[in-house]
Amino acid sequence: MVGTSIFGCERMVDDPAGKNAEQMAKEHKEISVSEFFEKNRHLLGYDNPTRALITVVKEFVDNSLDACEEARILPRIWLEVKSTTSDRFRVMLKDNGPGMMDNRIPQTLGKLLVGSKFYKNLQSRGQQGLGTKGAVMYSQLTTGKPTSIVASTGNGKTSFYELMIDVKKNEPKIVSHQYIEDGRVWHGLKIEMEIEGRYVESKSGVGEFIKQVAIANPFAEIIFDGPSGRVEFQRGAMELPPLPKEIKPHPYGVELGIFRRMIQETSSRTVKSFFTNDFSRVGGISADEICKLAGVNPGVSPRSIDADNSEKLFKAMKNAKLLRPPTDCLSPLGEELILSGLKKEIKAEFFSSVTRPPSVYRGSPFQVEVGIAYGGELPQEGAVDIMRISNRVPLMYQAGDCAITKAVAGTDWKKYGFNQSGKNMPTGPGVVMVHFASTWVPYTSESKQAIASYNIIIKEIKLALQEAGRRMQKYVSGKRRFEMHQQRKKIFERYIPEVAESLGKLTKENQELIKAKLQKMAKEVTEVKLFESELEGDDIEEIVSDGEGDS
Amino acid sequence: MVGTSIFGCERMVDDPAGKNAEQMAKEHKEISVSEFFEKNRHLLGYDNPTRALITVVKEFVDNSLDACEEARILPRIWLEVKSTTSDRFRVMLKDNGPGMMDNRIPQTLGKLLVGSKFYKNLQSRGQQGLGTKGAVMYSQLTTGKPTSIVASTGNGKTSFYELMIDVKKNEPKIVSHQYIEDGRVWHGLKIEMEIEGRYVESKSGVGEFIKQVAIANPFAEIIFDGPSGRVEFQRGAMELPPLPKEIKPHPYGVELGIFRRMIQETSSRTVKSFFTNDFSRVGGISADEICKLAGVNPGVSPRSIDADNSEKLFKAMKNAKLLRPPTDCLSPLGEELILSGLKKEIKAEFFSSVTRPPSVYRGSPFQVEVGIAYGGELPQEGAVDIMRISNRVPLMYQAGDCAITKAVAGTDWKKYGFNQSGKNMPTGPGVVMVHFASTWVPYTSESKQAIASYNIIIKEIKLALQEAGRRMQKYVSGKRRFEMHQQRKKIFERYIPEVAESLGKLTKENQELIKAKLQKMAKEVTEVKLFESELEGDDIEEIVSDGEGDS
Repeated sequence: MVGTSIFGCERMVDDPAGKNAEQMAKEHKEISVSEFFEKNRHLLGYDNPTRALITVVKEFVDNSLDACEEARILPRIWLEVKSTTSDRFRVMLKDNGPGMMDNRIPQTLGKLLVGSKFYKNLQSRGQQGLGTKGAVMYSQLTTGKPTSIVASTGNGKTSFYELMIDVKKNEPKIVSHQYIEDGRVWHGLKIEMEIEGRYVESKSGVGEFIKQVAIANPFAEIIFDGPSGRVEFQRGAMELPPLPKEIKPHPYGVELGIFRRMIQETSSRTVKSFFTNDFSRVGGISADEICKLAGVNPGVSPRSIDADNSEKLFKAMKNAKLLRPPTDCLSPLGEELILSGLKKEIKAEFFSSVTRPPSVYRGSPFQVEVGIAYGGELPQEGAVDIMRISNRVPLMYQAGDCAITKAVAGTDWKKYGFNQSGKNMPTGPGVVMVHFASTWVPYTSESKQAIASYNIIIKEIKLALQEAGRRMQKYVSGKRRFEMHQQRKKIFERYIPEVAESLGKLTKENQELIKAKLQKMAKEVTEVKLFESELEGDDIEEIVSDGEGDS
Repeated sequence: MVGTSIFGCERMVDDPAGKNAEQMAKEHKEISVSEFFEKNRHLLGYDNPTRALITVVKEFVDNSLDACEEARILPRIWLEVKSTTSDRFRVMLKDNGPGMMDNRIPQTLGKLLVGSKFYKNLQSRGQQGLGTKGAVMYSQLTTGKPTSIVASTGNGKTSFYELMIDVKKNEPKIVSHQYIEDGRVWHGLKIEMEIEGRYVESKSGVGEFIKQVAIANPFAEIIFDGPSGRVEFQRGAMELPPLPKEIKPHPYGVELGIFRRMIQETSSRTVKSFFTNDFSRVGGISADEICKLAGVNPGVSPRSIDADNSEKLFKAMKNAKLLRPPTDCLSPLGEELILSGLKKEIKAEFFSSVTRPPSVYRGSPFQVEVGIAYGGELPQEGAVDIMRISNRVPLMYQAGDCAITKAVAGTDWKKYGFNQSGKNMPTGPGVVMVHFASTWVPYTSESKQAIASYNIIIKEIKLALQEAGRRMQKYVSGKRRFEMHQQRKKIFERYIPEVAESLGKLTKENQELIKAKLQKMAKEVTEVKLFESELEGDDIEEIVSDGEGDS
C-alpha cells in the first residue's frame, strides 16, 4: 500500500521565502466555531445592516414560537424594534412561553452549536443550534454590548442575565446575573439586544416578515412595535396544530457511516433488536430478512459486527421492502389554518388551500401546502406575491435560489388565470403561499433562506400548486362567464323599453306589464348560479364577497 | 432593568403533551462541528454524487497548489479518478509539494476547523480549515473506509496513515500508522480515498474543472487520469507568481467586537503602540490623532481601557484619514500569466487580458482580472463560456448566485462584439475568464462556489470586463473592416482580366502588364494594415493567426 513517489526526488525551487513542512505545521491552529461564524457571519444572515436586523428578529420569533408550541401554549409575542442611534437598533422580544431554567440560560444562549433540535427527527423551526446565539454574537461584534435576558418558568422566581460569548472559546460569558424571588408568578422569556442595523420598509423587510409570520402561524398573537408604529396581529385560530412526534431514522435515509456509528453505539443487545428498536418501519420479520440477506445471525451482539458485515447489513437494509417513514413527525398547517391565516391578513375575493400527502426526501418525510388568494383588493398589475414558508417560518431572502421559486416559475399559470411570459413568475392579482414542512429542511445555507432544489421537492410543490391552481381556475373562469352574462343581460335590458313599447302597440297589452315580464326573463336567463354549479362541495376553498377577507 | 411580564400571569394550555422548561433543558446537547457538517454536508459541496466527486477533487487540488506555492515549488500534480463499483470512485492525488510533518498529519487531515489560513490576512485557496477534512468525512460516511495518506518532507522518512474522523468528538481516528525510513529522499503528499460519486462529462464536470485549473495556474503541470482516459496539462509558464505577504488588519475593516478583543489581548504596551503594531497603515501621527480624538492618553496600557473608552477609540479610528490597505497580500496572476494560461488551452484567434488595480471591500483588499479569448475555433453559436476563478480556483457551481455572473450579464456586450439580448449572458465565439483575488473571499457558502454580490465587487468586475471588452472590440471591428475590404478587393480583382483586356485593346499596351499593375493597385488600396493602425502598442493583448493558441 505504501507508494513510491511517481515523481521521484524533486528539487525545491531555490526561493528563500519558501516554507517547509515544519514551518507550515506551526501555523496550524484550531478555529473555534464561534470565530468561524463571526468571520463568516454572512452565512448566518448577517451580510449587511438591513438583513442583520431581520435575521435577529427572525431568530427571536422562531425561538419563541418553537418554545410555545412545544409547551402547548398559544403564543403571544411582543416585539419591539426601535432605533437608538443613526445606525443602531434595540430589538426586544417578550413571550408567554415556558421560559428557561436559570442555570441553563448561559449555555442555551451563549454558546454556538448547542441545541435540542439537531438530533431530533421532528419538525421544528430551529434545527441547528446557531440561531439566537448568532444574534448574541452579532450584537457584541457590532455594538460591544451584552444581550439581556429576563426569564421565568412560572415558579415565582425571575432570572436576569447579561450575556456575551467568549468567541475564542465558544463559551458563554456572564456579565451579570441576578435571581429574583419576588413571588410574582409568570412564565416566559424577554430577550433584548442592541445591534448595528438598518430598517427598510420593503418586500423583504421586518414588517413584511412579521405579517407573513402572522399568516403562517394564525394561532399566534403578535404585537409589533416598530420604527413606523405599532401593528397588532390578532389570532385567526384558537388552537395549535397537533404536536409533531419524534421518529426514529428510516433505513432508506441513513448512510453507511452513520449506520456504522449506530451499530457501534446501540444499547440493543442483538442485531435484530437493533433494527427493530433503532429504526422506524423495521419490524421483526423485516429485521430477520435483512440479517438473512446479509448472512448475519440476528441473535448476535451488535458489538461483534465487523466492518465487512456492517456493510453487508447496510446493503441488505437498503434493499429491504419497507413502509415509508411515519408522518406524525410532521405538523402541517392544514387547509383550514392556511385559509384562516390568509383571510385575516389579505383582502382578496377568493381563497383556496391544498395540503399534499407527505412524501419522503432522502429518508426525511416532508409535506407541501399551498394557499392562493385571488382578486379583491390585490393589485391587478405586477408579479403575483410569492410567500415562501418553511416549517412555518417565512423566507425573505435568496428567492432565486429556492426550490419554491423554481416550482412557481415552472408551473403554467396561464391555465389557471394568472398571466405569465415563458418561465417567468406569474403576474396578476394574486398571492401564492407555499409551506414546506419537514423534519430536516435542506436549506442552502445556515441562514436558512432558501430550500435546496431537489427534484422530488420541486415536483411535490408543483403538484400542490397545480391543484390549488385548478381550484382557482374554476373560480376565475366562472367569474369570467358570469361577467360575460352580465354584459349580455345589460345589452338585452337596454332594448327592453323599446321592445316593450313596440310589443305593446302590436298586442295592445299594457307596456309596463310587458316590460316587467321581459326584465324578469332577462334575469332568469342570464343569471348564473356560479357557486353551486362551478364548485365542488368538498373543495376546501371559500369565496368572500367584496374583497372582505375576514368573513 | 428587570422587567415585569407585559402579559402578566399566563395560564398554560391544558395539554399533557406540553413540555416545561426543565424537560426542554434536558434535551439540549452540544453538537460537534463534524456532526454539524456531516448532517449539513451539502454546505460543503456534497449535495449529490456528481458534485461530491468534483468537490473532493477540488479540495485535493486546492490543497496541493497552496502547499506548493507556499513552499515555492513549481507544482506537479498527478490526479487519478477511477470507478471501483457502479456508484463508487477512488480518487488519488499525488504532488511534489513540501509534504507534511508525520505527527501533524492526523490533526491536519482528521479534524474540522483546524487550519493555517483562517487567521492570516493573505490570499490563498483555502481559508476555512474545512476542505480536505470534509472530504475525509464524506468518504467514511458513504463508503465507511479510511483515507490513506503517504507523505514525506524530504528527510528520507515516509509516513503512511489510514485516517478517519471521530465525528462525535471532531477528532482524528488513526486506523493505522507506519513510519518508514528507507532512505529514499522525496517530498510530497499522496492522498487517496474511496467515495460515493458519479462522473459526468459536462461543463461543470471534473475534466472541465481540471482544464480551468490548468488555465488559472499555468505554472502547474497536471496529469489527470480519469474514467475517460489520461490528459496532460503542460506548463505555460516556468515561474510562480510572487508570494503574497501577510498583512495586519486595516482599521476600516475591523468591527467593534473584534477591536475590543484585539485591545484586550495585545502584547503592545501602550495604546499608541497597539495602533501602530497591530494594524496596517497606522503610523505614529495617525495613532496620536486617534487617541486625541477619543480623549485617551496614548501612553497608557491597553489593559486599562474600559468599554466606554474602547468604543471612543474605535470611532476615532474609523474617522481617521488612513491609506488604503497594502496590496502585497494579494497575488494576482498578472496579464502575462492570464494570456499564457488561456493560449495554451483555448484555440482562439484573439486574446486579451486586464489586471485592475486593487480595491478594498470591508477592509479586505481584492483585485479583479479578466481574460478574453475570441474567434478561432470557438463555436460561433451559443453562450460565451464564462470561467469564474477565485484565488486561482475555478468555481463550477452556483453560477446564478455569483457576483461574476451578475457583472457579466450586466455588461453591454453588443458594444464589444458579442451578441446579447437584454441582460442575458452574451453569445458568440468567446471565452471570458474572471479572476477574483482577495485575502478573504466573501463566498456565499462553505462550499465556496459563488462570490457574494457586493456592489463594490460587481463594479470592479464590470470595469475589468469593459476594459477587456474595448480591446476586443478594436480587434473585432478591425477584423470586420478588414473582411469588408477583402470582399471589395475580391470583386475588383474579378474584373481585372476583363478591364485589362479592354484597356489593352484601347491603349495597345501589353495586357499582362496592365493586369499586373491593376492587381498591384488592388492590393495597395484595399489592404488594411490592421495591426499597426488599430491596436495601441502598450495594450497587453496578442493576435495569433489561424486559431493557433500556442504561439
